[in-house]
Amino acid sequence: MAMKNQENVGILKKFPEASNKMYSFGSNVKKIAKEDPRKLIHSIKVGLAIALVSLFYYFEPLFDYEGFGVSSMWAVLTVVVVFEFSVGATLGKGVNRGFATFLAGSLGVAVHRLATFTGSDKLQPIILGLSVFSIAAIATFLRFVPKLKARYDYGILIFILTFSMISVSGYRDPVVLDKAITRVTTILIGGVAAIMFNVIIYPVWAGEDLHNLIATNIEDLGISLEGYGTQYFKKIDVKSEEELERISLKEYKCVVYSKASEENLVNFAKWEPHHGKFRYRHPWGQYLKIGDLVRECAIKINALNSDLTSCNMTQEGRKIIQEPCTKMSIECGSALKEIAMSMKTMTLYPTIDSHILKAKSSSEKLRSIIRNGDLIEELELQKLLPSTRIAS
Amino acid sequence: MAMKNQENVGILKKFPEASNKMYSFGSNVKKIAKEDPRKLIHSIKVGLAIALVSLFYYFEPLFDYEGFGVSSMWAVLTVVVVFEFSVGATLGKGVNRGFATFLAGSLGVAVHRLATFTGSDKLQPIILGLSVFSIAAIATFLRFVPKLKARYDYGILIFILTFSMISVSGYRDPVVLDKAITRVTTILIGGVAAIMFNVIIYPVWAGEDLHNLIATNIEDLGISLEGYGTQYFKKIDVKSEEELERISLKEYKCVVYSKASEENLVNFAKWEPHHGKFRYRHPWGQYLKIGDLVRECAIKINALNSDLTSCNMTQEGRKIIQEPCTKMSIECGSALKEIAMSMKTMTLYPTIDSHILKAKSSSEKLRSIIRNGDLIEELELQKLLPSTRIAS
Repeated sequence: MAMKNQENVGILKKFPEASNKMYSFGSNVKKIAKEDPRKLIHSIKVGLAIALVSLFYYFEPLFDYEGFGVSSMWAVLTVVVVFEFSVGATLGKGVNRGFATFLAGSLGVAVHRLATFTGSDKLQPIILGLSVFSIAAIATFLRFVPKLKARYDYGILIFILTFSMISVSGYRDPVVLDKAITRVTTILIGGVAAIMFNVIIYPVWAGEDLHNLIATNIEDLGISLEGYGTQYFKKIDVKSEEELERISLKEYKCVVYSKASEENLVNFAKWEPHHGKFRYRHPWGQYLKIGDLVRECAIKINALNSDLTSCNMTQEGRKIIQEPCTKMSIECGSALKEIAMSMKTMTLYPTIDSHILKAKSSSEKLRSIIRNGDLIEELELQKLLPSTRIAS
Repeated sequence: MAMKNQENVGILKKFPEASNKMYSFGSNVKKIAKEDPRKLIHSIKVGLAIALVSLFYYFEPLFDYEGFGVSSMWAVLTVVVVFEFSVGATLGKGVNRGFATFLAGSLGVAVHRLATFTGSDKLQPIILGLSVFSIAAIATFLRFVPKLKARYDYGILIFILTFSMISVSGYRDPVVLDKAITRVTTILIGGVAAIMFNVIIYPVWAGEDLHNLIATNIEDLGISLEGYGTQYFKKIDVKSEEELERISLKEYKCVVYSKASEENLVNFAKWEPHHGKFRYRHPWGQYLKIGDLVRECAIKINALNSDLTSCNMTQEGRKIIQEPCTKMSIECGSALKEIAMSMKTMTLYPTIDSHILKAKSSSEKLRSIIRNGDLIEELELQKLLPSTRIAS
């Protein structure tokens, strides 16, 4: 009896644990939907596109029983695989898939003809096997070349896939060669459907995302720099300093680690046509350079941060440098914030330069106050200034 | 005539340009193969696997004409798609594909039965369309959950794919349902072939790569710290300082930006069985923590670096601090290098602690020399010490 009770308790203990996990998973999902409703819309778009393409092939035999038959599944497959979050990614995958299928199909048919041309039953498998081996091996190796990987990775994969499938199945069943044309057609239909659904209903542009990501990173730096200067002098107890460092480190990490997503977005954006304020062939590569400068800037701010927290200054010393320091960080921060704003609105703010001049004069003042000093940050900020200038 | 000559010159100019590009591409490819010969071996492995599986299905009808037929292409397709560089990635994709195909197939057949059960021709497309829409939308949204994305992204994609294909094509042609079993079998054969080829011929373990990456990062930090201390005091002209900063920044960026590849490797390594010194369920998550600590360490060293380059010290001042500074950086550097070595060989080096103690005593000495000073680095190094300790 006692054991049974214990068991019950064990189960009861496990039950809330599992339900807790379920609950936290649910709230996690909710959070994702709330933070970026576009993700929810994207899911509905994908569901709609797949269901409609499926139903198209479901109803199709009613009109014409000699339709696409089993090949119809290639359309559904293409929609599922090609439909990505942003327009650029979808276009990139669609174009890659289309071109690769066409190229590999032609090459596959050519190799197949060559193999049958020899007429020998013994030579045929050797020719086919060798060509599949060599083309698959070379194409796989090309996937390691960074430039090709960035833009054509998916295309090369589909190329290997289609080539080996056509050159092998083509031999066994000559009808399959005719079917290849049907397959290319259905893939085209699927690809076009995916792109249409993606572009027409609430399109998500990778270029816009990239633009906003960089602007937000600059703004974050500005805010943290501005807040940092004022907060540092307000509360000087250890606890708030630690918190300060933690917050700035979090933002810092966000900025530093956004490199990978910036590179992805640039690769997607390159596929996108004219949209909003961005034309096709917008100089997306420049955004990477700005991103790198922002990162360097963040690293400098972090260095300054650890300088300040590690040097033990007296109360009086702090009071002396308070005014120019605060002003300097506020001016620098607002310059960064205005650069971010001018990026977001794509108009030039005339006040940016004056902020930078003010920051520079405060830094001069600070330097004249402490010539003997144990502070290095003015030099840090001096370094910071040119990089903010370039970032604009 | 003159124009024609000009044209010729234009073409001649373009020709070496194109051949130059080809040449640089070729040397680029060569470099990749030289830097990591495993990539070349991997390409040959993929070519071999695809060619052999293709030939298996090519010869198969000779034994038994009622074989897999068109379904055979699913085996080739699976090999192409599942075969990844490391064992972990291949296993992850294979398991994902297998489970997802099985689950989606069962669910697809169930929905199909439900739709035919109603017996109404009008209800059927509605039930099918609604189920495809809702399942595709929900599954697509789940792909945004970071935890699911890290491990099951490919599985969810295949789930959507298989479910929509089976529930739609299943209705139109009842024979297709029977074929579904053949399809699952061929996918299994393809998956197993890919995994076998990957594991048996020169396997590349993601876990080992991760282990080495982290150890190399620690070693790099150690080398740069060691070299930094000695070089800083040897040549004090501006040019070498700039170069110094450039070198250390390059290493620094390597360490900081390796976060994404570390996370990928951890995700792959989690799929890997016992190999070498690593068992299944090796605490791979801990490597991410060490990686983060190494990054923090790199950030601290970088902060110290910019401190030193920005503070204008006199020749004499430098001479006074030279001995303890050099010793400190050398001891810290060798501690880091020994930590890296002890990681690589997986044995504990007893001398690490003594290096750290020596570094600490030098740092004490340095602090006693300059109490009034304009140097902050000893505090930086003090901060560095605990993080190197934790990293071990």
